Amino acid sequence: MTQLNTDPRAATIAADPTVPAIHITRDFRATPAQLIRAHTDPEIVPLWMGPAKRTMAVDYWDARSGGSWRYVDTTDDVELGFHGCFHEISDERIVQTFTFEGMPEGVALETMTFEDLGDGLTRLHAKSLCDSFEARDGWLASGMETGVDEGYRALDGLLTEGRV
Amino acid sequence: MTQLNTDPRAATIAADPTVPAIHITRDFRATPAQLIRAHTDPEIVPLWMGPAKRTMAVDYWDARSGGSWRYVDTTDDVELGFHGCFHEISDERIVQTFTFEGMPEGVALETMTFEDLGDGLTRLHAKSLCDSFEARDGWLASGMETGVDEGYRALDGLLTEGRV
Repeated sequence: MTQLNTDPRAATIAADPTVPAIHITRDFRATPAQLIRAHTDPEIVPLWMGPAKRTMAVDYWDARSGGSWRYVDTTDDVELGFHGCFHEISDERIVQTFTFEGMPEGVALETMTFEDLGDGLTRLHAKSLCDSFEARDGWLASGMETGVDEGYRALDGLLTEGRV
Repeated sequence: MTQLNTDPRAATIAADPTVPAIHITRDFRATPAQLIRAHTDPEIVPLWMGPAKRTMAVDYWDARSGGSWRYVDTTDDVELGFHGCFHEISDERIVQTFTFEGMPEGVALETMTFEDLGDGLTRLHAKSLCDSFEARDGWLASGMETGVDEGYRALDGLLTEGRV
């Protein structure tokens, strides 16, 4: 049987050696279609994405190739906005842009693919291509692994409860 | 007086030394607003962009932050599609994604800024961030400078005629 890697602490976050990208890999007990829904359904995304203590409110969310999205996070009364456009949403992958409005100059290009491992398991491959190594290294130094791990742990819970 | 660089053959196309990006720089006798319009108005874009011998037909074009675009080129009866989404269209810059449908896996992130040089001149800075050095070097080897130079020369003509 395929080795299952759903320990939230085992999400892999790695710097690309040649381009200013971050690679995240994480296994889920889910189908690719469930993971695509988890990342695109505006009713589901706020239930799991990001650090546990944040509250996420969708401003707009048009999940189709050529659509766009924006949400506002609230943590300890501090509001932070994020927005982008969806370049592609297909059965193969999600490609979208990403800007954190606290650093409005920065734009990352995010690509998510979903590898069916069999046995009801899917491996998420998420890549964030930044426009400079400085920007990439800033994200890696920001404590992003807390939000990644807490978010994926919450998504594990939604999947177990049959809510995705 | 500022040195004017509107010789079409003098458009600068350069590989970034550290990230997989292409930088294009070109001066125009135009305002920043005219250059933004030239890149976003679906009535104007097909009049100048790309190689002189191609015919460009806009499929859809929603020029706003969060909108999307697609056009089809015809050259010698061969049709090629291109599409993407507009991450940002503002007075400061245009940020958009770009896919050539002949290589649908590839997605570039394009950023255009418009530097007002005074004296009615504006310097266009265009950056295409590719997802690998191989993809970037493929574009540089593709003969793209012909389309770039012929396109900008046509745009010079539209500006001179007062059509932008």
